[in-house]
Amino acid sequence: MASAAVGYARENQSRFLEELKALLRIPSVSTAEEHKDDVRKAANFVAEELKRIGFENVQVIETKGHPLVYGDWLHAEGKPTALCYAHYDVQPAEPLDEWHTPPFEPTERNSNLYARGAVDDKGQLWMEVKAFESLFQTHGGKLPINARVLFEGEEEVGGEAIEEYVKTNPDKLKADFALICDTELFAPDLPTICVGLRGLVYTEIEARGAATDLHSGVYGGAAPNPLFALSTIIAKLKDANGKILIPGFYEGVKKPTAAELKAWHSLPFNEEEYRQKEVGSDVLTGEPKYPVLYRTWARPTLEVHGMPGGFVAQGAKTVIPAKASAKISMRLVPNQDPDDILKKYTEYVTSLTPKGIQLKFKVHSKGAAIVVGTKNKYIKAATHALHEIFHKDTVYTRSGGSIPIVAQFANDLKIPSVMMGFGLPDDNLHAPNEKFHIPNFHRGIESLARFFEILGSEK
Amino acid sequence: MASAAVGYARENQSRFLEELKALLRIPSVSTAEEHKDDVRKAANFVAEELKRIGFENVQVIETKGHPLVYGDWLHAEGKPTALCYAHYDVQPAEPLDEWHTPPFEPTERNSNLYARGAVDDKGQLWMEVKAFESLFQTHGGKLPINARVLFEGEEEVGGEAIEEYVKTNPDKLKADFALICDTELFAPDLPTICVGLRGLVYTEIEARGAATDLHSGVYGGAAPNPLFALSTIIAKLKDANGKILIPGFYEGVKKPTAAELKAWHSLPFNEEEYRQKEVGSDVLTGEPKYPVLYRTWARPTLEVHGMPGGFVAQGAKTVIPAKASAKISMRLVPNQDPDDILKKYTEYVTSLTPKGIQLKFKVHSKGAAIVVGTKNKYIKAATHALHEIFHKDTVYTRSGGSIPIVAQFANDLKIPSVMMGFGLPDDNLHAPNEKFHIPNFHRGIESLARFFEILGSEK
Repeated sequence: MASAAVGYARENQSRFLEELKALLRIPSVSTAEEHKDDVRKAANFVAEELKRIGFENVQVIETKGHPLVYGDWLHAEGKPTALCYAHYDVQPAEPLDEWHTPPFEPTERNSNLYARGAVDDKGQLWMEVKAFESLFQTHGGKLPINARVLFEGEEEVGGEAIEEYVKTNPDKLKADFALICDTELFAPDLPTICVGLRGLVYTEIEARGAATDLHSGVYGGAAPNPLFALSTIIAKLKDANGKILIPGFYEGVKKPTAAELKAWHSLPFNEEEYRQKEVGSDVLTGEPKYPVLYRTWARPTLEVHGMPGGFVAQGAKTVIPAKASAKISMRLVPNQDPDDILKKYTEYVTSLTPKGIQLKFKVHSKGAAIVVGTKNKYIKAATHALHEIFHKDTVYTRSGGSIPIVAQFANDLKIPSVMMGFGLPDDNLHAPNEKFHIPNFHRGIESLARFFEILGSEK
Repeated sequence: MASAAVGYARENQSRFLEELKALLRIPSVSTAEEHKDDVRKAANFVAEELKRIGFENVQVIETKGHPLVYGDWLHAEGKPTALCYAHYDVQPAEPLDEWHTPPFEPTERNSNLYARGAVDDKGQLWMEVKAFESLFQTHGGKLPINARVLFEGEEEVGGEAIEEYVKTNPDKLKADFALICDTELFAPDLPTICVGLRGLVYTEIEARGAATDLHSGVYGGAAPNPLFALSTIIAKLKDANGKILIPGFYEGVKKPTAAELKAWHSLPFNEEEYRQKEVGSDVLTGEPKYPVLYRTWARPTLEVHGMPGGFVAQGAKTVIPAKASAKISMRLVPNQDPDDILKKYTEYVTSLTPKGIQLKFKVHSKGAAIVVGTKNKYIKAATHALHEIFHKDTVYTRSGGSIPIVAQFANDLKIPSVMMGFGLPDDNLHAPNEKFHIPNFHRGIESLARFFEILGSEK
């Protein structure tokens, strides 16, 4: 190996980590109107650093929503061009009372860094930035390949701005491949490249009954109850075995290949351990005839995330709410078209509308599933780099999560993505006590630096 | 007529109203821990006024929860003794953004007084106090009958303290009848005595699945979802025709008498007008074979009031919540035993528990339905008084709401209750923009003063 860039990264570990903490202190919660300025502050923070380390044409690009951050360095003639993606926005931190230390005060414990966004995705964004700094610093102010970075601030709310930007500016984003740092290792110390993602359709159904909240004693037996109505609808969306009941929902669902299924089967995975350590429930749920990895990676699912409405504080209030909502999402697999699924879902739910209730639909986000091949030279270079840093063979996995931009890079820019992420399965993404295992932050920086060096050294 | 007390009440209308406003400015929300001191403040406010106007033995009685306010005047030898009940606590004011003027800043508009608690029940409590003041002032510092007042601060949260106090102190509350001012006129200008109330069992079911909140992309298809679980349970509690599906739920339900049904049928009630003006929904719901008044007064019902858990803020969060709850209540009718119903409900819900979910039950309140006769001398005197003030015959109705203390007065003190209330059907009880029609506040005071005078003049 003997890479000066890796040496530089190792010498600067503690500074890199302190810089990440500063970024994590900015509560860039993209779904919360009150954090709008914080999201911009995080964008500016990242843009300033890109300029400082050597990127050119650095811009905070205005959009209808939160800004994009762009920068490039395109002077490695004859070498490939990377389009490097990550996101600087984070999920809301609620429920706050379940955090052991405050979500926006990054805290080190047991070699982990705890904070909202630690691993999803500010920590992984910062890995990219610091890999580039290490390369600029040790390659005489140059990079071994051409690079564009494009960071978004709306990943957790559907990514509309980047979708629009990629669609309308394909020439400004010309690249040979994309690098996505927003995934995880399959197990600690096991280098992992993600080659498949589920799609997502996230909706909100608002149900309205009476014109105003009513006393349940006086009106119970005459007034429609939107919360009850939503419950009856939800109960008909999925059966007790996890089968989704929307007519035509499974039409065209593409199965994983036999080779993939075989590879998944040989992964170090124990359902009982997963149940106990990761999920912590009595039993696992879902379609019984599919193993857990198949269910969560390659089968579509449907979940309810919240049902605002009525009286949700402590204690009792005898109210029939005038309106209530249900936040419901579906994860999609290859060959399910999000628009088609949304149409089938909307029609089915509408057909279930109880007496006296009016429904309104809102779509929070929508993106297709994607599966990428493992044979291209970018995946091969990434595999090579990971082996150098981890001294182990890479496993190719899928993720049950969704990164809609990957499908768009394939469709609009016609480039493959390398999804190389360094989270761990127990990192509490989207939950209280989110963390990033600090050694993985550093190994991520090193792996990315080597990845670019390897690609740059190829004839 | 020619009652000096009525004359006094008329001369002091504007002062009485201003005093009520002062009481309404105290946010005595009994279910909210943060308003605990306000509840006490309201109790003290009322107790001070009872002393000022001439009551004796006035006490703010400490309990495990919010205090009771007691006072008596027992020097009308040979005359009956009234036990006068009302409550000084109020419902929460949420959702605040639907109030046209702030809930704890009483505001007059169109002859109405808008405020949380205006009619339920501080306004009606103040009617009692002001009727007594008018009598003390015009009867030479005496009352025409003996009176005890007992006001509680926990009616909106189940009334545990008063239940305990009545059970353990029947001797201190010896009376011939109870007066309850917490009901409404059937229609504007139509004097009304309520002779039946539904009972209430108010529960909260907590469902737990995974040990912590999980990402719905990563774990969707494997982790149990408590919100989905609660939805499937709720959907099986009641069918689309309002029939409750708990086994044995309707056992022993007592029908109204033929005379009652005939009287209800002749009330000025139009279902279409009720739907449009009071409920404001497309259609009415509930058991189709029973008319609306029968459904809401004499049929048991079940409602969901709120489902806390998961992500309920604006926007999208892809979370499978670790836990969620459902606040569910049942209204009971005569001959349904609350303990028996609670047992059947708990057993049935438990039997519906989905895979991977653990349920916990909490009971917020519990009380039986009651029906009182119309032939006793107290109801007759009340009817007489109402005729003097309204110049109309009184109608005898039931209420779909619940006042558990009425059943307890019958059972523990062996006394009948006179439920004489002056609210209106569109007063927005438990909802935003609660109001009290100001002329009804004053007619209430006058009717109560005359009621006591008539009882005191009988041989």
